[in-house]
Amino acid sequence: MDENTTPWIQTVQLDEPSLKDNTADAERLLQALKSHLNIPAIDIDPDLLKSLPAILRGAQFNIRCVLFKENQQWVLTGLSAASDSHVCAGLAVDLGTTRVVLRLLDLATGRPLAESAFDNPQETIGPDILSRIHFVEKEDGLKHLNDLMISGLNSAIADLCTSQNLQREHIYALAVAGNTTMTHLFMNLNPRWLIREPYIPVVNNPGVIKAETLGLQINPMARVLIFPNIGSYFGGDLIAGVLFSRIYQSAQTCMLVDVGTNAEVVLGNENWLIACAGAAGPALEGGVTRMGMTAGPGVIDQISVDPDSLEFNMHTIDDLPPSGICGSGVIDLAAQLFLSGMIDVRGKLLPAVCGPKIKKIDDLLHLVVVPAENSATGADLTVSQADLDSLMRSKAAMYTILETITGSVGIKPHELESFFVAGTFGSFINPESAIAIGMLPDLPRNRYQSLGNSSLGGATLALQSDACHDEIDRIRERITYLELNVNQDFMNRFSAAKFLPHTNTSLFPSLKTVQKK
Amino acid sequence: MDENTTPWIQTVQLDEPSLKDNTADAERLLQALKSHLNIPAIDIDPDLLKSLPAILRGAQFNIRCVLFKENQQWVLTGLSAASDSHVCAGLAVDLGTTRVVLRLLDLATGRPLAESAFDNPQETIGPDILSRIHFVEKEDGLKHLNDLMISGLNSAIADLCTSQNLQREHIYALAVAGNTTMTHLFMNLNPRWLIREPYIPVVNNPGVIKAETLGLQINPMARVLIFPNIGSYFGGDLIAGVLFSRIYQSAQTCMLVDVGTNAEVVLGNENWLIACAGAAGPALEGGVTRMGMTAGPGVIDQISVDPDSLEFNMHTIDDLPPSGICGSGVIDLAAQLFLSGMIDVRGKLLPAVCGPKIKKIDDLLHLVVVPAENSATGADLTVSQADLDSLMRSKAAMYTILETITGSVGIKPHELESFFVAGTFGSFINPESAIAIGMLPDLPRNRYQSLGNSSLGGATLALQSDACHDEIDRIRERITYLELNVNQDFMNRFSAAKFLPHTNTSLFPSLKTVQKK
Repeated sequence: MDENTTPWIQTVQLDEPSLKDNTADAERLLQALKSHLNIPAIDIDPDLLKSLPAILRGAQFNIRCVLFKENQQWVLTGLSAASDSHVCAGLAVDLGTTRVVLRLLDLATGRPLAESAFDNPQETIGPDILSRIHFVEKEDGLKHLNDLMISGLNSAIADLCTSQNLQREHIYALAVAGNTTMTHLFMNLNPRWLIREPYIPVVNNPGVIKAETLGLQINPMARVLIFPNIGSYFGGDLIAGVLFSRIYQSAQTCMLVDVGTNAEVVLGNENWLIACAGAAGPALEGGVTRMGMTAGPGVIDQISVDPDSLEFNMHTIDDLPPSGICGSGVIDLAAQLFLSGMIDVRGKLLPAVCGPKIKKIDDLLHLVVVPAENSATGADLTVSQADLDSLMRSKAAMYTILETITGSVGIKPHELESFFVAGTFGSFINPESAIAIGMLPDLPRNRYQSLGNSSLGGATLALQSDACHDEIDRIRERITYLELNVNQDFMNRFSAAKFLPHTNTSLFPSLKTVQKK
Repeated sequence: MDENTTPWIQTVQLDEPSLKDNTADAERLLQALKSHLNIPAIDIDPDLLKSLPAILRGAQFNIRCVLFKENQQWVLTGLSAASDSHVCAGLAVDLGTTRVVLRLLDLATGRPLAESAFDNPQETIGPDILSRIHFVEKEDGLKHLNDLMISGLNSAIADLCTSQNLQREHIYALAVAGNTTMTHLFMNLNPRWLIREPYIPVVNNPGVIKAETLGLQINPMARVLIFPNIGSYFGGDLIAGVLFSRIYQSAQTCMLVDVGTNAEVVLGNENWLIACAGAAGPALEGGVTRMGMTAGPGVIDQISVDPDSLEFNMHTIDDLPPSGICGSGVIDLAAQLFLSGMIDVRGKLLPAVCGPKIKKIDDLLHLVVVPAENSATGADLTVSQADLDSLMRSKAAMYTILETITGSVGIKPHELESFFVAGTFGSFINPESAIAIGMLPDLPRNRYQSLGNSSLGGATLALQSDACHDEIDRIRERITYLELNVNQDFMNRFSAAKFLPHTNTSLFPSLKTVQKK
């Protein structure tokens, strides 16, 4: 039998009431819990009072309790006989703009039970945050966006429960991490001021809210912890990422980079945390090229070029016929094109080297990565010069941001002790390639670490430990947000970073040995 | 213009957000309120977040806030532009078994605006607590009782608002005091264990609950303070009474008596409080006689007997033709019958003295108080020997309880410095008569004080001052409940108290001068 590793599930045996001790049911139970947990105060959900007397007496006063922390206060949200063995579950949610990921946990042990994911149903309104925020101006626009999210979650939860043979009412706690806009839409809060100067959220720290008031079809008394944000551009997903990376506890200075639609960057250690966000992403996720897409079956995620034959060797997800190329694939490709001399230091295709792989369409050079006869789509998969130019700007923006944030505290990018890359992007990226194009600093490769879905990871932690609730608040309070000043100095650095790997090659000493002349 | 005398309504001017200060709307407002009130923390109702951005901007960040205290924590429950002049109202409720009384207040000033009352609609189920608790065993019985109460309140609130030209949504706080059963039914909690040994409430201290969850049709974010109980037989109405009487702040020892269906008694001072409750009431409220009724129009509330002619002089409420006699009238009558020699020291009618006023019905002596030709009902209004016997038991029970509770702390009833009589009964009772029959101790008459509806008075205080919220908890914690042990000693005292005024007449020295031989 599992030992409880979280404080959320507690079993207590109460003294039965008597004429000598006529304390009410609620106070009797709370008193026992307080001494059991050695805490000064616990609230009880008022709705729980309705079933309390029958449960206590049906269980001979031997009771399993479900607790959670509502801001600073412990609260009792569920009750059953100690003999009842149903799993009390928690659900960690990564509320992504494009994809929503759920992880079901056993709330007693913190052990993950199952995961599922679904495309954010708000994509029917618009693929990006901006289009969704604009949609709010329409009549009932906010309500519609909120409904899409909540009903999407409810049906995913129902499916997950069916697959785990769990009743929805047995989900007693949620932890939700998302960017500031997604969090607003989830809470049915108007996000319109997030994109209008001076970019003000409705709330920075929503805290813990009752599931019922959010429309979630789980236990109506379940508590929902919503990760706080620092501002419009720095959301709860990244706070969750910081929690998950543990950089806030590290003695050495670490970098955390999460590349989604934005690149979000946190630098820090146990003493300080500094963060900034910039639009580095568009070139790196779906949208970079006509065939650009997020990672998925059939998508090219790794690619190499034979330096002699200039033939492409590629890997697709699930080994299916290639249907497109994702962010990490594009970075691999650019690195390989450069190392094999097919593009120059400015990222320009060199027709003389590329030979028959080059096509000119509408006066624009295209490189055929997969000819029509080998692709899953029946058309050439190509990368155009415009795509490469876009990538050059993105990688330059990323490096400049890293340089700026490290510079703001007087260190150099290559002095970082640990470098965490979060998100789907982080799971697939080959640091070797990202360094080769000068997108990420030239650190010893073992300092790079992929975190996977750090937003989901942080949300999971919030369900595994009550101490994390305080950590979240402390992380939020400790982060200094660095407003990126796009001034002359920034532009100078940006220009230097637009070369492969950089105008100052001494920043990338490890590349000297592999670069083809 | 009224100065605010409560802390609940606060007007603050916020600094407008800027690129240099992108704090979210909620935190900006809460921060301003915290420094304005000099308190460390305020919560905001999550539902308030929805309208927050539009209200802040519509009001140029000059905002009127409605606050309340939820247990120990301040919470923001309402928002409007500072220029908005609608009254923010509070409602004090006395949740009586027979009658529910509402008092509407201006929440800013604490000033009462209006009152109304209605018969407890649960009377259709049963006149007393016991019959209602038994009704809960029927299918949907609890729901039905709860519905009756909540819809009764909602329609009374609607009427009160109409008469005051107030929107229901502008009621932001409620304070509710009632006995333990009424409080349970109000909260939709099963009261079945209240009447079964060992008599356990579901909850002693319900604290503050959101109006919405109770089904009250006022502002859904309004907070409802529900007075705590000490046990099945000592409810929030009496805690409210203690609060209202201020005996818990008195240097001198005081007695508080509330006679409703039960007699509830609290003895104490600033250092200690001791309470007990006993079934002294049935004889003193509706039910004592066939014509017995609670105070109301046409009911005899004062009566005197001319010592020579033995003619009755009586007063009826609103000076209408007599239709019955209420508790205070019965006590007056018994005192006058005794003082005029028409009953003996055992409370027995003396036909020789009463003469033609005596009738024998079904072998039982009856005294005609109002002959048929003068009564509003067209029938004789009579008091039977059985009614008088019942009164003798009641008055003896009351005196014995007072003697027991004072004895438990080593003082005598006549040593009390102040004696508060609460409730409708207290408003009408003539202490002179109650002393004459030995029901209340023979104190200097100026030590008696009628409190009126002390339950409503206490509920009102909870809306007028935040300090009262802490007082309520402290009163509850400080009260020692004295379980009445009906042992031989109690029965001996009870027997002695069943005489008029008492077997030990030295306890009633002031009566010697007036009693007729």
